[in-house]
Amino acid sequence: MKEKISDKTINRLTLYHCILNDFIESNINTITSVQIANLLKIDDSQVRKDISLLQNSGKSRVGYCVADLKKAIETTLGFAHPKNAFIVGAGNLGLALAKYDNFLNYGLNVLALFDVDPLKVGVTINKKEVYHISKLPELAKQMGVQMVLLTVPRSVAQKTADFLVNSNIKYIWNFSPSVLDVPKGVEVWNENLMGNFLHFSYKISN
Amino acid sequence: MKEKISDKTINRLTLYHCILNDFIESNINTITSVQIANLLKIDDSQVRKDISLLQNSGKSRVGYCVADLKKAIETTLGFAHPKNAFIVGAGNLGLALAKYDNFLNYGLNVLALFDVDPLKVGVTINKKEVYHISKLPELAKQMGVQMVLLTVPRSVAQKTADFLVNSNIKYIWNFSPSVLDVPKGVEVWNENLMGNFLHFSYKISN
Repeated sequence: MKEKISDKTINRLTLYHCILNDFIESNINTITSVQIANLLKIDDSQVRKDISLLQNSGKSRVGYCVADLKKAIETTLGFAHPKNAFIVGAGNLGLALAKYDNFLNYGLNVLALFDVDPLKVGVTINKKEVYHISKLPELAKQMGVQMVLLTVPRSVAQKTADFLVNSNIKYIWNFSPSVLDVPKGVEVWNENLMGNFLHFSYKISN
Repeated sequence: MKEKISDKTINRLTLYHCILNDFIESNINTITSVQIANLLKIDDSQVRKDISLLQNSGKSRVGYCVADLKKAIETTLGFAHPKNAFIVGAGNLGLALAKYDNFLNYGLNVLALFDVDPLKVGVTINKKEVYHISKLPELAKQMGVQMVLLTVPRSVAQKTADFLVNSNIKYIWNFSPSVLDVPKGVEVWNENLMGNFLHFSYKISN
């Protein structure tokens, strides 16, 4: 049976993954838990404990094999099963996310964007077309998309969420600073930027 | 003595704050813990426990006074002491963050943006000017800024962080998908978008 991995561990593993990408780009083949720990300013015993949760972590006498460890993280966290998604809201944040190629490396495959602005509809961003929002229900069905990254302004966030729910969207990654009221069976992940800032701010003032 | 509030509680309190803003806009004066709990799909005893950490939470016989509860969250989480900051990187994400007026409500005061692109330098975004990065050390000193939101591409993230550290920046809110190597005395908060996605993705697949 698969062991449940905690949120904090998932978070650390993705940071290790970033570091491994940097090492690969620099053509370094081996990495130690101490190197990872120093970059993240955490304890190296924590790093070893996290890595012990992975299968085939590439441990050797001199450290870990960078490529193997990277693959082990990807397999464990399920990057191998990409999820298709739409971005709803083609403002700056929506465009930034559409350009964020890193997503695909992590199993998030953004297929298209949606907006109401006629100036945006028809534009192509990073090979993804911007469609009018009215096309969403049909395209979601055709493309089998159940996940949306919601980047609309707060003032229309709930109205848009209602529309998405009616279009059979099941998973909403909510980047708008608004708490959405959705029925059972729909999952919302609040990308609470202000919450994150306040952690940071609280941490540095205390 | 001030009680230490956990990261998860801070996160929930900021979501309650979002809900309170919505209630204020709808001219509703009273809110119950059950209403908050239902919107967030959490237990109402958790909501009451979190609110019990606040001073002057505005509790009455029929619920909480919306305005008082909002103020209590702001006071407890220190929104009242704004922090000045710069955005480094005037790409889509930098622009999205510059336009995000909500920040100021939470005590984050973005004063200016910086970039190397001559086409961006001199432009004004949401009343904030984009300066050439070479002006940063001088302006940081003049304006007393110690915090930066880093939104540059991954390929230049470390080089830019080194420059910021040399410019006496002490706090880096890192939006680039890169782990930064900084000396002691500099705090980095990794806005690990992929980590957040993987929590969500892991949660919905298990």
